Amino acid sequence: MLKATVTGRIWSTKKLGEVPAGSILEVQVDGTSTTMLVFDPLGCGDGEKVIVATGSVAASWFPGKSPPIDALVIGSIDEASVAAGKKK
Amino acid sequence: MLKATVTGRIWSTKKLGEVPAGSILEVQVDGTSTTMLVFDPLGCGDGEKVIVATGSVAASWFPGKSPPIDALVIGSIDEASVAAGKKK
Amino acid sequence: MLKATVTGRIWSTKKLGEVPAGSILEVQVDGTSTTMLVFDPLGCGDGEKVIVATGSVAASWFPGKSPPIDALVIGSIDEASVAAGKKK
Amino acid sequence: MLKATVTGRIWSTKKLGEVPAGSILEVQVDGTSTTMLVFDPLGCGDGEKVIVATGSVAASWFPGKSPPIDALVIGSIDEASVAAGKKK
Amino acid sequence: MLKATVTGRIWSTKKLGEVPAGSILEVQVDGTSTTMLVFDPLGCGDGEKVIVATGSVAASWFPGKSPPIDALVIGSIDEASVAAGKKK
Repeated sequence: MLKATVTGRIWSTKKLGEVPAGSILEVQVDGTSTTMLVFDPLGCGDGEKVIVATGSVAASWFPGKSPPIDALVIGSIDEASVAAGKKK
Repeated sequence: MLKATVTGRIWSTKKLGEVPAGSILEVQVDGTSTTMLVFDPLGCGDGEKVIVATGSVAASWFPGKSPPIDALVIGSIDEASVAAGKKK
Repeated sequence: MLKATVTGRIWSTKKLGEVPAGSILEVQVDGTSTTMLVFDPLGCGDGEKVIVATGSVAASWFPGKSPPIDALVIGSIDEASVAAGKKK
Repeated sequence: MLKATVTGRIWSTKKLGEVPAGSILEVQVDGTSTTMLVFDPLGCGDGEKVIVATGSVAASWFPGKSPPIDALVIGSIDEASVAAGKKK
Repeated sequence: MLKATVTGRIWSTKKLGEVPAGSILEVQVDGTSTTMLVFDPLGCGDGEKVIVATGSVAASWFPGKSPPIDALVIGSIDEASVAAGKKK
């Protein structure tokens, strides 16, 4: 998975009918200049640090027929995490 | 998913029979020099900003047996999106 | 998919029995220094511009049990394509 | 697979219900500045060198319905490995 | 697929039970500084040039339930290949 920071949000009116209703975030992968668009079922906000899963596992998370979604926020990272990791 | 801008269109006469009829766009991934070829069911035009899903989820979108297509335009990005994201 | 140019061809005598008989091309991804090996069912030649699909969709194209092939030439690009895209 | 070194650990309280209970490590891919988040069923510690599998094969390892996990520690690398490889 | 050169070999005593018995090579992707770990059913040696398939197609090659293996040596490249490609 990737550690990323929410930097924005996009809207799409003209889209495939199979794209699920919900929020599509723009995130920046930490430590890089790479940005991605990610489906967010968790309601994350700008600046929040998130865990992003990519590929077919993102689509398989959805109930029923898998939609054409290849990136999913699977969690928000607790603020204490990095410090705890570094202390060890 | 990737945020990309349509930069062109390619035609292929000599191709596998399993490639679906339809438009194959050339897009540039925003913020990079990376270009990709993407199947477009939405009729997007040059300069349009699009959402691209990649990998097996692109192939699974097609009805029936999945074709050898690994990139799909799933939506066009509304012009107001980036500004809205930045204001938040 | 990727737009690439055929730069060579490789032969492999010592290989898995599940690798299908046929041509494996070396291609260079356009606009990059990245090279890849790609299974070619279309009989493309050196210098030809091709469309390459990657990942499990390449393997799924083969009839019967999917072979361990992760890159497939799905088409040859018509010479007029790039110019047409740029004029639009 | 990737050879990586464990550099930390993250915690996530706000997460999808389908994320399995267990440890999510932060690792750095050897020879690069790339970092990733990886599910670790083996109890690896900081500084340990690990083998990371990515993509849908990581999700398929879990029993039952595959969770939205795209990176998995599949082994810890014995210390003697690199030296042995170089001597050959 | 990727063209790579075998540079070493790793051993892992502490690993998932689902990792198949066999050789895991370290390879360097030709023309890059990228290194990968690859399962090798063919008994390749240091310095040998190999064809590597990645992703779920590598796991699907194994009989029975797919193991968490995302890279597989599918062939060894005949020495004459590159020269032949260049001459054409």
